[in-house]
Amino acid sequence: MREIAIIGIGQTPIDEHWEKSLRVLAGEAALSALVDSGRDSVDGIYVGNMLSGAASHQQHLGALIADWIGLRYTEAFKIESACGSGGAALRSAVMAVASGMQESALAVGVEKMTDSPGSEITAHLATAADADWEADQGVSFVALNALIMRRYMYEYGWKHADFAGFSINAHANAVHNPNARFQDPINETIYNKSAMIAEPINLMDASPMGDGAAAVVVVPADTIKPNGRPLIMIAGSSSATDSIAVHDRRDPLWLTAAERSVKKAYTQAGVGPQDIDVFELHDAFTIMAALSLEACGFAERGQGPRLALDGQISPQGRVPIATRGGLKARGHPVGATGMYQIVEVVQQLRGEAGETQVPNARIGMAQNIGGSGSNIVTHILKSV
Amino acid sequence: MREIAIIGIGQTPIDEHWEKSLRVLAGEAALSALVDSGRDSVDGIYVGNMLSGAASHQQHLGALIADWIGLRYTEAFKIESACGSGGAALRSAVMAVASGMQESALAVGVEKMTDSPGSEITAHLATAADADWEADQGVSFVALNALIMRRYMYEYGWKHADFAGFSINAHANAVHNPNARFQDPINETIYNKSAMIAEPINLMDASPMGDGAAAVVVVPADTIKPNGRPLIMIAGSSSATDSIAVHDRRDPLWLTAAERSVKKAYTQAGVGPQDIDVFELHDAFTIMAALSLEACGFAERGQGPRLALDGQISPQGRVPIATRGGLKARGHPVGATGMYQIVEVVQQLRGEAGETQVPNARIGMAQNIGGSGSNIVTHILKSV
Repeated sequence: MREIAIIGIGQTPIDEHWEKSLRVLAGEAALSALVDSGRDSVDGIYVGNMLSGAASHQQHLGALIADWIGLRYTEAFKIESACGSGGAALRSAVMAVASGMQESALAVGVEKMTDSPGSEITAHLATAADADWEADQGVSFVALNALIMRRYMYEYGWKHADFAGFSINAHANAVHNPNARFQDPINETIYNKSAMIAEPINLMDASPMGDGAAAVVVVPADTIKPNGRPLIMIAGSSSATDSIAVHDRRDPLWLTAAERSVKKAYTQAGVGPQDIDVFELHDAFTIMAALSLEACGFAERGQGPRLALDGQISPQGRVPIATRGGLKARGHPVGATGMYQIVEVVQQLRGEAGETQVPNARIGMAQNIGGSGSNIVTHILKSV
Repeated sequence: MREIAIIGIGQTPIDEHWEKSLRVLAGEAALSALVDSGRDSVDGIYVGNMLSGAASHQQHLGALIADWIGLRYTEAFKIESACGSGGAALRSAVMAVASGMQESALAVGVEKMTDSPGSEITAHLATAADADWEADQGVSFVALNALIMRRYMYEYGWKHADFAGFSINAHANAVHNPNARFQDPINETIYNKSAMIAEPINLMDASPMGDGAAAVVVVPADTIKPNGRPLIMIAGSSSATDSIAVHDRRDPLWLTAAERSVKKAYTQAGVGPQDIDVFELHDAFTIMAALSLEACGFAERGQGPRLALDGQISPQGRVPIATRGGLKARGHPVGATGMYQIVEVVQQLRGEAGETQVPNARIGMAQNIGGSGSNIVTHILKSV
């Protein structure tokens, strides 16, 4: 198999971009990535997006974006895997180039959520769950996660306040990320007193929606000429599914798809959790941060919150997560999130992460989750 | 690059399947394909679909279908490229296996359209066009094709009746296809007297919606043990885009994306139009059949209808098209159509096409169009 490297990254701020359409947002990120890569075209474009058909009455984003960025005629498809669409788009780009069918590819994630009323977006987001057995019964996405979190607290004896560290770390890091949705720090008082959404999930446990786009350019590693920058290799790329309905799982407190996906990626990259210098995980809710840390081997079962309580998740900690703000504070424009994670890991491995730079980061991991753990994509990047 | 072969096919009848959900339909086709392949699992599942989020309030079909067919934990994504989603799903499956990242893959196209009122589906289908510059101006998909057909008739001097042969051939072939939506023949009188939809497109120029699913299993060719069946190789696989808005093209009467996509596929397969024994084209409207024949090198510019008038498109003709009914009579469940085309070409190359078998078919082509020619996927299959 050909070795693949990332040679360009781009992103827009995550915000309420009422003045920018889908193609404008995606184009800004895509063109930034192309400029950063030093190229003016690619052979294939793979777009991660979940909601455009429902929220913007626009499907067919492949052709839309290819044309807008001046690459009319280029192969271009949309990849959808709910909130895991961004990671899935990169995986498609990697497979396209690794197959030898394309010599270069652009993966771009884009989502536009804030033009629609919140109640509509809540309904659109619920299409990531099982329509027949979850959404049609009235369970929203936050409610599903609340059921999981409540059970987790019961099984392992955690209090709600024990999850505060995840949100505090995310917000502390986002202060230094100019593209983050929220750039203000929070503290335990704010966390504990925030409005309840679906008990035990309050506003500070949940990631905010937003509009945004992020993109990367990938090529075969052996085609890159030395340019003074570290070479960012895709050392592991893998994904796995689980039941779409949470109640169909033997253990709703274990992310089997994360475990399967990450094990394969570790093997491909020849590393283990102890080798990961930075981990951009999918903290759509604080409970998901805890479950991801456990499934990926950073904490024992039921002990995810311990890492946050012990101060080990900051950029200077043992397991730095959400180093640019994570979903919680950088924001969660659902189909774009997986691409933001990749862009941020590249920033860390290039040493371009500024105030929240992880010292000597050489190996980074990004993990993007679709649904309540039902589709999980893992990428491991190495700076060489 | 690894050579890829199709070892299993499956399909459901196209009909109003009000009693079957998305997962049930997709599962029937997928499990048929697995049984036909002699396998009970695959490494990756790539789902072509356009409308499920809007029409069935269900996204995330990868996880949904993987779990339903007993392949929980398997990689699974949805690929969307409007009405070209089925072809794009096969292309994704081919790239996954060709890359060496997967050793086998299932591509399944599924669409469920008849549960929704026709007016809603018309609006959902318009999301394949440019939302800002076409759909929001009130142009439906049939209207866009009517504008193209009217201009074509003006430029090249054709009458509406000259297109009758495309529909008559499609219906004549569908009589012998038990999975076709319509299994009744039509004649020139029926064609000429049918109700007008958007002048000059009448009911017999347009393909019908429907519910259905079709699937194939692909593996590296060198892993197949001889089993007495012809080996069906994917000799060419390519796609290209064009502007999403028709008015942005230099020539709205020429399918540049088809020309680019097919040229690459011809080169990969080492063949030209004269070598194609059967061509499953995208006759969503009769005008699209004419334009496809021209862009793929079977007719001079502006002369597509001549092939139908001269009786050359029947299974015994020089350029057999729509041999199982085409979009016009087999039906057009949009995101599934591209997979039906592939299944039907395989049937022809295996000699399993019954009454409409093309004699000695060895090389077949399928071409799937998304939007009004804005995303076109071409596959060339060879029986060896």
